[in-house]
Amino acid sequence: MARNRRLADNNLRLFDKHGIRTINILGSVGSGKTSLVEAIAQKLKDHRDEIVVIAGDVTTTIDADRVAQHGVRTVQVNTGVECHLDAKLIQKALETVDLASTKIIIIENVGNLICPADFPLGSHLRLVVVSVTEGPWMIQKHPVMFHEADLLVINKIDLAEIMEVDVDQLEQDAKQVNPRLVVFRTSIRKDQGVDAVIEHLGLHQITKAD
Amino acid sequence: MARNRRLADNNLRLFDKHGIRTINILGSVGSGKTSLVEAIAQKLKDHRDEIVVIAGDVTTTIDADRVAQHGVRTVQVNTGVECHLDAKLIQKALETVDLASTKIIIIENVGNLICPADFPLGSHLRLVVVSVTEGPWMIQKHPVMFHEADLLVINKIDLAEIMEVDVDQLEQDAKQVNPRLVVFRTSIRKDQGVDAVIEHLGLHQITKAD
Repeated sequence: MARNRRLADNNLRLFDKHGIRTINILGSVGSGKTSLVEAIAQKLKDHRDEIVVIAGDVTTTIDADRVAQHGVRTVQVNTGVECHLDAKLIQKALETVDLASTKIIIIENVGNLICPADFPLGSHLRLVVVSVTEGPWMIQKHPVMFHEADLLVINKIDLAEIMEVDVDQLEQDAKQVNPRLVVFRTSIRKDQGVDAVIEHLGLHQITKAD
Repeated sequence: MARNRRLADNNLRLFDKHGIRTINILGSVGSGKTSLVEAIAQKLKDHRDEIVVIAGDVTTTIDADRVAQHGVRTVQVNTGVECHLDAKLIQKALETVDLASTKIIIIENVGNLICPADFPLGSHLRLVVVSVTEGPWMIQKHPVMFHEADLLVINKIDLAEIMEVDVDQLEQDAKQVNPRLVVFRTSIRKDQGVDAVIEHLGLHQITKAD
């Protein structure tokens, strides 16, 4: 853990040295992490050369392949049996990236709400995606994940009614765990709320910076 | 791992000695594990005194509380930061259970498709619940989980169309990883398919045995 913390700090220094903004996206399988990354890549397509996506998964290259369709650079990191990325894996992934031409790095973590919470990667912020289809308890059950996050995206809100999930309650649960959490409601599939997330992340400004 | 295997074998011997049938239920948060356990408890309510549910979670007693409403005995096991139950935790939980009056033990594992796969608990079989709301990739991304399973329950099939998920493809993915996997399709919320799962598990017979 201490070693991971040290390596994460190294990663952060490297990002800052190159003026790169890095976001760690976390959430369960199927919550919409990859869809969010795809939407960001699509909406920032004029700057796709400046974006790198590091996609973490136990196995397969499904996510990286989906994201690569949008013309951004991708690095797939397979963790084997591990349920999370760690700072060492990110350090290794960064060795394959031309950092000088990079302004934004989006890290898509392995899909679950438990282990990735304990492993900082050196990102500037953590964004957690939950889907209303995960039911009403996913926040209360995983306080560490939400306590350590900066942004919460509650996704698939178009299905809230049919899922009988109370989005206000989810937001309240999250704020109770972490009052400084900034919460967005999205239906990424229907392009609802994604612009607000990108604006809050300041990604347009970064790509416009020079 | 070897130690866990040994403890799991001990648990299995203990179950067999008492004629107890034990099922390890796995799946992501929100897939429907607790709903399935509730449905089983409800449908076997004439035998509720013979059923024990061990509910695993990182924190909270939400699942055990839900299940306890149906009059079965419950043991909540909180893993703290661990993303899975292990055989030692089950051994400890069993110390609090009157095994002589027990015929069925249902273990609900911690919600994710990664870590629990590597930790046998001594159960007679493993049942994995996935929900179509988790998208089309959850099986391909987690081959170990499905390779080690005996039963697969594909849940929330009433939402397959709106989620644009192909249930046949999910079943095909699962059979490719593990051809001996027995697959059921359910909407637990709408009481579709649950009776077939219970029948396959032979739970009615067990409770009828004496």
